[in-house]
Amino acid sequence: MKKIAIVGIGLIGGSLALQCRRKGIASSIIGVDNNPSHAEEAIALKLVDEVMTLDEAIQKADVIVLTVPMNALVDLLPAILSKVDHQVVMDMGSTKSTLAKIVDQHPRRGRFIATHPMWGTEYSGPSAAVEGAFENKAVILCDTEKTDADALAFAKELYSSLNMHILEMNAVDHDLHAAYVSHISHITSFALANTVLEKEREDNAIFEMASAGFESTVRLAKSNPDMWTPILMQNKDNVLDVLNEHISQLRKFKSCLEKENWDYLKELMSNANQIRRIIQ
Amino acid sequence: MKKIAIVGIGLIGGSLALQCRRKGIASSIIGVDNNPSHAEEAIALKLVDEVMTLDEAIQKADVIVLTVPMNALVDLLPAILSKVDHQVVMDMGSTKSTLAKIVDQHPRRGRFIATHPMWGTEYSGPSAAVEGAFENKAVILCDTEKTDADALAFAKELYSSLNMHILEMNAVDHDLHAAYVSHISHITSFALANTVLEKEREDNAIFEMASAGFESTVRLAKSNPDMWTPILMQNKDNVLDVLNEHISQLRKFKSCLEKENWDYLKELMSNANQIRRIIQ
Repeated sequence: MKKIAIVGIGLIGGSLALQCRRKGIASSIIGVDNNPSHAEEAIALKLVDEVMTLDEAIQKADVIVLTVPMNALVDLLPAILSKVDHQVVMDMGSTKSTLAKIVDQHPRRGRFIATHPMWGTEYSGPSAAVEGAFENKAVILCDTEKTDADALAFAKELYSSLNMHILEMNAVDHDLHAAYVSHISHITSFALANTVLEKEREDNAIFEMASAGFESTVRLAKSNPDMWTPILMQNKDNVLDVLNEHISQLRKFKSCLEKENWDYLKELMSNANQIRRIIQ
Repeated sequence: MKKIAIVGIGLIGGSLALQCRRKGIASSIIGVDNNPSHAEEAIALKLVDEVMTLDEAIQKADVIVLTVPMNALVDLLPAILSKVDHQVVMDMGSTKSTLAKIVDQHPRRGRFIATHPMWGTEYSGPSAAVEGAFENKAVILCDTEKTDADALAFAKELYSSLNMHILEMNAVDHDLHAAYVSHISHITSFALANTVLEKEREDNAIFEMASAGFESTVRLAKSNPDMWTPILMQNKDNVLDVLNEHISQLRKFKSCLEKENWDYLKELMSNANQIRRIIQ
């Protein structure tokens, strides 16, 4: 069992802490958080055994897991790599290409393993941590050929014990795919919330009618802008491509309605039904 | 207890049948379906006690509930109203204005109560019927001043026993609100599915990464085009207005990304966070 330091004890870091304890992966869990109230909360919620400064944690831990927003990550990662020798350094962030470039030539590149577990909720902070997270979801390990064998082995062991389905791909492919299966969903949800909130100004009654379908499509709009701004910044080009494609798909629906082309409207929906192959 | 005929034993009609039995609302349930295999399935699944032709059912039932697609409803409703005297006739469809106009001058208008329970799933047919449906959701009763007192009382009693939150509004307001809190969600889901399926042609691996967030925003894309084409046809003008607004909200995100205006991007997301007031 390893001594694991988790830097950034929010939704992801906190949920990982709970799983590491439950699965017997960690002998102890050190929390690091530059927000003192989050650090206190992490102790109070028993997510971590103790709280330390980053430098103390680097000294004491076998594994340092970074679960901070992507903008903080690009600053933190090279600084931490410069201070480690034997430790494994792992991130769990939503974008990978920017990070990959930043550490590519780092003398300690081999100690780093880039990972992205495809799990999350629309909530944030230590109180958002939940038991049983990550289970049965996919996790992407990126550019694994650049990681030392022991660090890669640790990451695989960790995610296997969480029953995750491990995929390997390079950082560039990761970011393209993440734009399609995660980032665009957040943008459509945010935009849908704004569409309806705009209307609500004139009409308070509208939400009394809100259905489960609406809730499902709009729930990601509750996501934390401090997390999502840097993700969309770092994956700008891919996200723009997918967003343009999505707007053009929406325009097809618009055109069908305008031209009363009901056959084509039905065809568009029938085509969309093929998503059944992919999600249950 | 009433003898209730349900015309169209699919997701909605079948789920209503189960609740009517469970809550002791119906002494017996008659099923009517022009799809013989659906009728058989409804018997096999014990959704209904017996299957009859529509004319037989009209004769024998105290209440006739119409849960057919909106295009069938506009033909069926006036024909059925012409054949009833004491019976209550109720629909549970997703649009109301077209229907309201069609029956407005009907001599038996008072026997009809227009309702829209804000509950559904993305599945269809008798096998999609589920126990415990409708509970704790909103239901809209439209143009109730045009309904006879006993018919209105029955609808209120029915939906109260399903623990639904009853709202009353006119058909025109209903259709406007439904465009915002239900119809647009379906279009965005269908379009998002098409966006990603388009990409998948080149790249089969993409869905191995699909996250819960993606699933949530895209699940409505599994909805039945035969149901949704007539809904969107009948609510064309409202849906087009909301769709135009939604596309313009998406363009704001696009413009932020293109111009690297990260402050405004964050502001758009923070504004969307206000949806927390409305959905838990």
